[in-house]
Amino acid sequence: MIRKLYALSGADMTRQFSPHVWKSVMSLAHKGLEYETVPVCFTEIPTIEGGNAATVPLLRDGERVVQDSFDIALYLEEAYPDRPSLFGGEGGKAMARFIEAWSQSTLHMAITRIAILDIHNLLGPADREYFRRSREARLGASLEEIAAAGMAEIEGFAKKLQPLRSMLKKQPFIGGKGPLFADYIVFGALQWLRTTAGTKVLENDDPVADWFSRCLDLHGGVGHRVTAA
Amino acid sequence: MIRKLYALSGADMTRQFSPHVWKSVMSLAHKGLEYETVPVCFTEIPTIEGGNAATVPLLRDGERVVQDSFDIALYLEEAYPDRPSLFGGEGGKAMARFIEAWSQSTLHMAITRIAILDIHNLLGPADREYFRRSREARLGASLEEIAAAGMAEIEGFAKKLQPLRSMLKKQPFIGGKGPLFADYIVFGALQWLRTTAGTKVLENDDPVADWFSRCLDLHGGVGHRVTAA
Repeated sequence: MIRKLYALSGADMTRQFSPHVWKSVMSLAHKGLEYETVPVCFTEIPTIEGGNAATVPLLRDGERVVQDSFDIALYLEEAYPDRPSLFGGEGGKAMARFIEAWSQSTLHMAITRIAILDIHNLLGPADREYFRRSREARLGASLEEIAAAGMAEIEGFAKKLQPLRSMLKKQPFIGGKGPLFADYIVFGALQWLRTTAGTKVLENDDPVADWFSRCLDLHGGVGHRVTAA
Repeated sequence: MIRKLYALSGADMTRQFSPHVWKSVMSLAHKGLEYETVPVCFTEIPTIEGGNAATVPLLRDGERVVQDSFDIALYLEEAYPDRPSLFGGEGGKAMARFIEAWSQSTLHMAITRIAILDIHNLLGPADREYFRRSREARLGASLEEIAAAGMAEIEGFAKKLQPLRSMLKKQPFIGGKGPLFADYIVFGALQWLRTTAGTKVLENDDPVADWFSRCLDLHGGVGHRVTAA
C-alpha cells in the first residue's frame, strides 16, 4: 500500500501507545483513509525514510513524507478536502494550536510521571536503555524517582481536565456536535495513559470519562484496538 | 443610535471593567460596528430592556436584544457576515467554547480573589452592598478573607497562562495571524484585572504580556480607553 504510518512500538508491536501517533491514527480514520502501520521502536526511528525523522508519527503518502501529528492533520486537510474536515475552517486550525499547547503543558508531564515506568517496561531491550538514559537526562531524576512523583499526580489529574468538563456542558465534542482534530489531541493524551499505565484517573460519572468513551467508539472503534493496560 | 451596548459600570461610569463586557466591546470593534454604550450598575441590571436580563453585556441591535458575550459574538457573526469574521468558521465557534471554559475555570476565580476588594471599592453605594452580600454568599467568606487568599494567587498567576505562552511560539494570536473572538475571551479576563486591581502578574518579557499589549492596541486602541488601575 502506498500510504504508510510509522508508529512507535513497544516489544509487543500491536500495542500502540504514543499520544502523537494516536492523534494521526484518529486523523486518518476521520478522513476515512486506508494505510499500513509500520511499527518502529525508539532506536529505529533514525533509520526510517532516509534518516531525517527524529520522531514519529511519520506519514508517507505517495511521494509525500510528513512528520509531526499536527502537520499530518494539516496535510490531510489540504490533500483530502472532500473528506470530513479535521478543523472546520481556518479559525479551527488556529485554535487547535491553543488546545495542543494546553494538552502538552497541562496533561503530558503529569502522564509522563504517572506512566514512566510502565512505558519503560513495555519497550524492547535496546529501547529500554535509550529511554532510561534520555528521560533521566531530560527530567533530571531516575525513572523510579519520577514514578514516585507520579503517585502524587494521580489524585490531582481529574482537576486538570476542568476546562474540558466545563465545555462539555455546552457541546459533546471540542469540535462541537462532532469530533475534530482538537478532540484527537486530548484523546491522544488520555489514550497514552490508558494503554501504558491504565491508571484510573476519572470517576465513572465524570463527563470527561463519557467524552473519552465516545472518542474510543469513533470510526468503528479504532481506539479500542489496544486494550487498557 | 439604534445599537446599544449595556455595560457594567462603577461609580465612575467611564471605567468599564467587566470581562464579559470587554469581550463584546472588542467583538463590536472587530466588526467595525458603531454603538452607544449604556452604563448600568449591578443593581440597575434588572430594570433594563423590560427586566429580563440578569447580567450584562446586553446588546440591543434594532429589534434584536442579545444577552451573553458569547451569544452576542455569535449573533454579530450571523448578522454581519460581510464584516471580518469573529470565529473563522464552524470549528472556530466550537473551539472558542473550550477557550471560554479554560478562561473561566483557570483565570476567573484567581482574578476574583485578587481583585475583589478593588471591584467593591469602585462601585457606587447601592452596588457595594449588593456586591458584598452576593459574593460573600457565593464564595462562603468575607470579601476581606477572599482578598487575603488573593495574595497567594498573584505569584502563581503567570503559570496559569502557560498554554497561551506555549501557543505563542507558533502564532501571534489565538486566532492565528490575527485576533478572533477567542483572543477577546482571554483578553477580557486580563483587562478585568488591569482595570480593577491593576496588579502586575506578568514579567515585561513574558510573551503573554506582549500578546496582551497587542490586544490593547487593536481596533484603534479601544482597550486603552480605560487606564490601568
